[in-house]
Amino acid sequence: MDFERMKKQIEFIEGIDEIKHVFRKTLLMDGSRHENDAEHSWHLGVMALLLSEYANTGELDVLRVVKMVLVHDIVEIDAGDTFCYDEKGALDKREREEKAADRIFNILPADQAREIRDLWEEFEECETPEARFAASLDRLQPLLHNYKTCGASWKKHGITKDRVMERNCHIEKGSKQLWAFVERLIEDSVKKGYLSE
Amino acid sequence: MDFERMKKQIEFIEGIDEIKHVFRKTLLMDGSRHENDAEHSWHLGVMALLLSEYANTGELDVLRVVKMVLVHDIVEIDAGDTFCYDEKGALDKREREEKAADRIFNILPADQAREIRDLWEEFEECETPEARFAASLDRLQPLLHNYKTCGASWKKHGITKDRVMERNCHIEKGSKQLWAFVERLIEDSVKKGYLSE
Repeated sequence: MDFERMKKQIEFIEGIDEIKHVFRKTLLMDGSRHENDAEHSWHLGVMALLLSEYANTGELDVLRVVKMVLVHDIVEIDAGDTFCYDEKGALDKREREEKAADRIFNILPADQAREIRDLWEEFEECETPEARFAASLDRLQPLLHNYKTCGASWKKHGITKDRVMERNCHIEKGSKQLWAFVERLIEDSVKKGYLSE
Repeated sequence: MDFERMKKQIEFIEGIDEIKHVFRKTLLMDGSRHENDAEHSWHLGVMALLLSEYANTGELDVLRVVKMVLVHDIVEIDAGDTFCYDEKGALDKREREEKAADRIFNILPADQAREIRDLWEEFEECETPEARFAASLDRLQPLLHNYKTCGASWKKHGITKDRVMERNCHIEKGSKQLWAFVERLIEDSVKKGYLSE
């Protein structure tokens, strides 16, 4: 048996273990520590399985959504997590992530490197129904974490309601129903003092 | 809009955040700390996407495999992680996990509680091609971690080659090709002193 192909796949699987060290600004729901990208991606995977009925498009390819959310943050192993409200970090985010994608995905055999790259680019471009729904989940999840921690990350970084609305109104493109839920959650966060006007 | 169904789903999604606090015996590949169940489940999800070509069954339902690996450890939120070489813990593992499944899955709307329960039971019974392949991945992943950490967890718990072989030979039921790879990895671990005879 020729193990060359499998060896490349295993090397990639071992390499991406580092994502467990990439920490996000989000706290776990009990507030005890920051969440890492592996935990975040797992959570989105389960959410994709449970919430796909709310996608704006009836005929959603759920496997494609799950694939996207499981791999969407792998580039952060090299590029680091860019906080969604970090305007300076956003300037060279694409460049840093492209470079990371070149290195990391190409550990895989060429066909799979292409497949994962395409999934990542589809997610980033956010134009297909699957990518839009995946992006909605990627926004909804940290909102739930912020709500459960009484706005810990919002408060720490001085994020106000208008910025939360500006970023998260894109949820509507993937799911009008989830957005309706989120609008109420944001209103309630303001009312409870988790988020300032 | 009636949010009752969505509220149950969100409550479940919030509840399973606790899996990020359930630590396994496995160390991360850099040996810095133990791995938790969310990280482990994410890793298996990516492995399912990349390695399904090696399943013994040609016509594998990859989405079903991914679903199973993403939810297979949720019961450990209540039942705790049972080390695979813990014979005493194995005695009441099923009972503890059934009780956990009753509580946690039933947070969901009834149809989804049933779906996730069925996935978990399919994984546990390990009889369908999808469950067998998922179980192969669940065994392969900690082997890779043990290999990369020079057998840290094997050494700490005094696990010898015969026990590793006994537990992991089941990989063959899901994938003869992955088992061929693992046999070599185990031999190499013994040769390098990561695992004792």
